[in-house]
Amino acid sequence: MKPNVVFWYEFASSYSYLSAMRISEVASRAGVTVEWRPFLLGPIFKSQGWETSPFNLYPAKGRYMVRDIARTASAHGIPFKMPTAFPGNGLKAARLAIAAGGQGAVAGFSQAVYAAAFGKGLDIFDDAVLTECLLAAGLDPETTRTLAGDPAVKAALRTNSDEAMAFGIFGAPSFTTSDGELFWGDDRLEQALAWEIDSTKEKS
Amino acid sequence: MKPNVVFWYEFASSYSYLSAMRISEVASRAGVTVEWRPFLLGPIFKSQGWETSPFNLYPAKGRYMVRDIARTASAHGIPFKMPTAFPGNGLKAARLAIAAGGQGAVAGFSQAVYAAAFGKGLDIFDDAVLTECLLAAGLDPETTRTLAGDPAVKAALRTNSDEAMAFGIFGAPSFTTSDGELFWGDDRLEQALAWEIDSTKEKS
Repeated sequence: MKPNVVFWYEFASSYSYLSAMRISEVASRAGVTVEWRPFLLGPIFKSQGWETSPFNLYPAKGRYMVRDIARTASAHGIPFKMPTAFPGNGLKAARLAIAAGGQGAVAGFSQAVYAAAFGKGLDIFDDAVLTECLLAAGLDPETTRTLAGDPAVKAALRTNSDEAMAFGIFGAPSFTTSDGELFWGDDRLEQALAWEIDSTKEKS
Repeated sequence: MKPNVVFWYEFASSYSYLSAMRISEVASRAGVTVEWRPFLLGPIFKSQGWETSPFNLYPAKGRYMVRDIARTASAHGIPFKMPTAFPGNGLKAARLAIAAGGQGAVAGFSQAVYAAAFGKGLDIFDDAVLTECLLAAGLDPETTRTLAGDPAVKAALRTNSDEAMAFGIFGAPSFTTSDGELFWGDDRLEQALAWEIDSTKEKS
């Protein structure tokens, strides 16, 4: 079995930024492929009774998150700027990411969106911002927007979100392995990759 | 300045178990001393509107926590068993830990309590369990209980808990450095130690 992890991410999630900017390199070095799977956290948070991000509901946690990500981003040598409106609305970006996936550009487009949202603090619900991200990933904005409007793409995003909840995913980023282990949080990325390598080795 | 981190812990906290069992060794290897500071999370959770642990309030998160700690404990070669009643009541243990601190045995006693709670799944509000922990730390149970009943010890625990909240601490384990940085979670222990070493180096 070829080692592969599923990377579950929500574009509004600040900690997903840290993983999105490094997972390609870290996984490639470990010999693991990555399936990028965007989903929406909103419905999961709502099912827990949360109408917004826990970082807004619990201010001490929110202040800590900003400082914690600033420290980690600095250690990774990447910029960090919180968007003015947090959490952003990741719906359009998630549909575009699925459409980008059909063109082999899900990683490049998703990284461009995260770089805009948390590297520059831009609003990723803004069409002009998304156009720049599409161009940065080498995609044609008009073609990709048409694809993203297809009912099949909308259904695929709903399926991703339903499957995330069914899997027991409650936050982002999350990582799942071929044998069904769930890892939550950027700081579990290495552990997820190591688990995937061990478990696929046993089966090969 | 001699590098020193404050280790903020709550005896009912499952992730604090992971830190308590390794912090002495990891910090000593890094050349950093540790100040063990028990506090109560209950008042902080209550101030956020939580009447119990978030791991009970959010079942998916609770199930994940058990699996996540089992994996990490296994990697560290330590046993893990969730107490039947979770969260336990850490009040008696916290007062005894402060009394143990007066006798130079706070680390040993605290580790014994965590080993009972999350290594064996025992109830740490049970006096017989606590007696075993006191003995394991080389303390006289009767003497230490008398000390723990002193109003000054009760006040010291309240002060710890008040200071934790004032510092913006919202969970356990947490670590604070000499220059006032806050780190939350067992997976930030190494980062806290490295920060403390860097910041005290700059000032020496």
